Amino acid sequence: MDLEDLTIPGFEALALALTQNNDTRLRELVENAQTADLATFLLNQDVDTCLRVLRVLEQQGQAELLGYLDIETQLDIAELMPDQELAELLIRMPADDRVDMFNRLGTRQQDALLRRMVKEEQDELRSLSSHEEGTAGALMTSDYAVIPVGSKVEQALAYLRATAPDAETIYQLYLLDDEHKLVGTLSLRDLILARPDTAVSELMTRDVLAVHVDTEQEDVAKLISRYDLLAIPVLDGEDRMVGIITYDDAMDVAEEEATEDIHKSATVGKLTDGLRKSSLFTLYRKLAGWLVLLVFVNLFSGAGIAYFEDIVATYLVLIFFLPLLIGSAGNAGSQAATLMVRGMATGEVQLKDWAVMLGREVAVASALGLTMAGAVAMVAYYRGGPDIALVVALSMVSVVVVGSLVGMLLPFILGKLNFDPATASAPLVASIADVTGVLVYFSIATFVLGLTATA
Amino acid sequence: MDLEDLTIPGFEALALALTQNNDTRLRELVENAQTADLATFLLNQDVDTCLRVLRVLEQQGQAELLGYLDIETQLDIAELMPDQELAELLIRMPADDRVDMFNRLGTRQQDALLRRMVKEEQDELRSLSSHEEGTAGALMTSDYAVIPVGSKVEQALAYLRATAPDAETIYQLYLLDDEHKLVGTLSLRDLILARPDTAVSELMTRDVLAVHVDTEQEDVAKLISRYDLLAIPVLDGEDRMVGIITYDDAMDVAEEEATEDIHKSATVGKLTDGLRKSSLFTLYRKLAGWLVLLVFVNLFSGAGIAYFEDIVATYLVLIFFLPLLIGSAGNAGSQAATLMVRGMATGEVQLKDWAVMLGREVAVASALGLTMAGAVAMVAYYRGGPDIALVVALSMVSVVVVGSLVGMLLPFILGKLNFDPATASAPLVASIADVTGVLVYFSIATFVLGLTATA
Repeated sequence: MDLEDLTIPGFEALALALTQNNDTRLRELVENAQTADLATFLLNQDVDTCLRVLRVLEQQGQAELLGYLDIETQLDIAELMPDQELAELLIRMPADDRVDMFNRLGTRQQDALLRRMVKEEQDELRSLSSHEEGTAGALMTSDYAVIPVGSKVEQALAYLRATAPDAETIYQLYLLDDEHKLVGTLSLRDLILARPDTAVSELMTRDVLAVHVDTEQEDVAKLISRYDLLAIPVLDGEDRMVGIITYDDAMDVAEEEATEDIHKSATVGKLTDGLRKSSLFTLYRKLAGWLVLLVFVNLFSGAGIAYFEDIVATYLVLIFFLPLLIGSAGNAGSQAATLMVRGMATGEVQLKDWAVMLGREVAVASALGLTMAGAVAMVAYYRGGPDIALVVALSMVSVVVVGSLVGMLLPFILGKLNFDPATASAPLVASIADVTGVLVYFSIATFVLGLTATA
Repeated sequence: MDLEDLTIPGFEALALALTQNNDTRLRELVENAQTADLATFLLNQDVDTCLRVLRVLEQQGQAELLGYLDIETQLDIAELMPDQELAELLIRMPADDRVDMFNRLGTRQQDALLRRMVKEEQDELRSLSSHEEGTAGALMTSDYAVIPVGSKVEQALAYLRATAPDAETIYQLYLLDDEHKLVGTLSLRDLILARPDTAVSELMTRDVLAVHVDTEQEDVAKLISRYDLLAIPVLDGEDRMVGIITYDDAMDVAEEEATEDIHKSATVGKLTDGLRKSSLFTLYRKLAGWLVLLVFVNLFSGAGIAYFEDIVATYLVLIFFLPLLIGSAGNAGSQAATLMVRGMATGEVQLKDWAVMLGREVAVASALGLTMAGAVAMVAYYRGGPDIALVVALSMVSVVVVGSLVGMLLPFILGKLNFDPATASAPLVASIADVTGVLVYFSIATFVLGLTATA
């Protein structure tokens, strides 16, 4: 399903207003559009158009839209925009988006922007931007809602109304002590449903699930999804609360991580800027590494054939079934590896399950191998007679079972050695299955055809 | 990263309390645990243990935990539990979980349970369970928070306190007319931050983004993620509001859909019950279809070799490089297909972009082909002399480009024909790349070696 189908009408009208330079119409359309839709529209526009659309909005709207744009467009805009204007937009952006953009700017521009901010804004930006990408610290926002520890429900609500309009969410509220350590948390729901004179300390949960600034973003997303949280607090090295991460950022991370896992499954490296926006050279770099490495794995298949040169020369018909057999081994291996890697990524399969999974894999792979042997035996009989049919059928069962076991065990072994199980990509497993397939096939051929030749 | 690492300690203590039949300790542990953690713990326990742990909780807690369990465990429990007890838990479960479980029960038990419910509960369950799995109707809950259209902020808050404690979320509020049609929506945040005597009709958004009961769950998840929604309303065929879907269900759907996409990328069919819980026969059925189909695609590779039998017999050394060349074509094709399929799934790449993507693909694939040709040419030179090196290098560039183009274009063609682009799985692309690789390789060999033979 294509996101195009989900697009709310209005893109054509926007394009028309832009080409006709109809500023009144443009303003009307832009002001009534959803920020996410405007960002999608601008994805395919040049930077001048982006600036024109952006400047239609008042500052707060500009800051919000800027936060929605992809990083490449943000940088293009930053290049064209005067530093003062950019600084004003930056401080109005949600803290997490602000840091993402700031971190990608050049040092000169970073300094120029910092000079245009007041002391607290500078400090906040410096501290937020110090966290490594991919960690909770880089993902969090410092705009969260705090209520006073000693207050009653009614006071807390009044405090919230006065202080929290800028908070990323006010649905999860935090209570801090004098050292800025997290004392408890409370949902706005509990606050609203409680009697006005109840003390918030009676309502709050003391045992708060939190992450640290250096927790991996993938784990943050998993925690939020697992416990159906609206937001999770982030603590620094001294356990002081420094920010929150909200469910919508967790959803984006989950999508990002799924993309990374899918790419890994085909030996594609991490594409920070996506498929369309990455430069051709980046794309080349992210694809070439494993491809070249696998060339050397595949050379072993050739060496295997060379080792069996005599039987190949005698029974040339064996070669006709080679692509089929090693392809099938590779396909079965890819299936097994993909199932295991995803099962381990979602937590459905754990390292300690390897023995159970092995038993299941042997059973299923044997059934698959027999089915495929049946499918190909007739062709082999017709093409090369009963001996070749026997060799091909036996080989098919063996290579499918071996390929499946390679695919199933490799992610476990990698996981056990503290590597990412996802390194067991379909191409890697297929290449290993190719090599073992060649050896198994010609060994069986030597055995069966050798026997019948002397009979 | 494994979910095990995220587990809050306590599983060992739980297991100990169970084996020691220490009911006091068990109660203490169960009552203090997070529901999601209890569900994870019960994933590896037998049904009797599940029942024991369940019955420690009071009814509301039991219903909640039951909703968190996987469907197989739910059904095992349903089999052992008296109908009256089960009916009472069912009506306390969140409406969406309740329907999921109810739909998988046998007809006899469904009737027995319905008989034990009051009329309204029966009607609600019948109506919710009528929606097809995978649609918004099957995903939604009917427990949402409504506020009266004509009320002021203060009245609306009082109304909410009185009516909404059971609602799935009270952070998004809905305003309905007499025919139950959606008039507007309002966030609790806006309500809280507004002056008490403001009319809610002034605060509400009239232009509400909503889905229909038969909207695919994948699209619902995309909308929620795209617009950072907390919940999205669901309308029936006559545009009456019948439920909401919340962000946490959207997160689960997104994970489910990512798993489905990843499985498809390796020709694995949809596993409703997951990898561990699926029966061996189900697993066999979901894997065998494409594997057998690809056997017949791969047979064409054999036919290709047969067609070039003469040159193969003359230059047996060509065979040594066959697995390498077709493997590399398959790997490059898998990479290209995986990038395109994922790009189209996330909406980053759209059907109309095919020409741009084609140009980029040709450029990157050529560079990759040249790199890999360089890597292998030396080996080919050493093994077969300059002619063979030339054949292998030329073939490598060609098959990598052809394989990449197959991988890149197939998802577009499938999408254009209204098939799922994800059908362009790595094994399918690799198998097609194998066939074309055989033809390209031996054609080049015939051409080059034919020329030099007569020179």
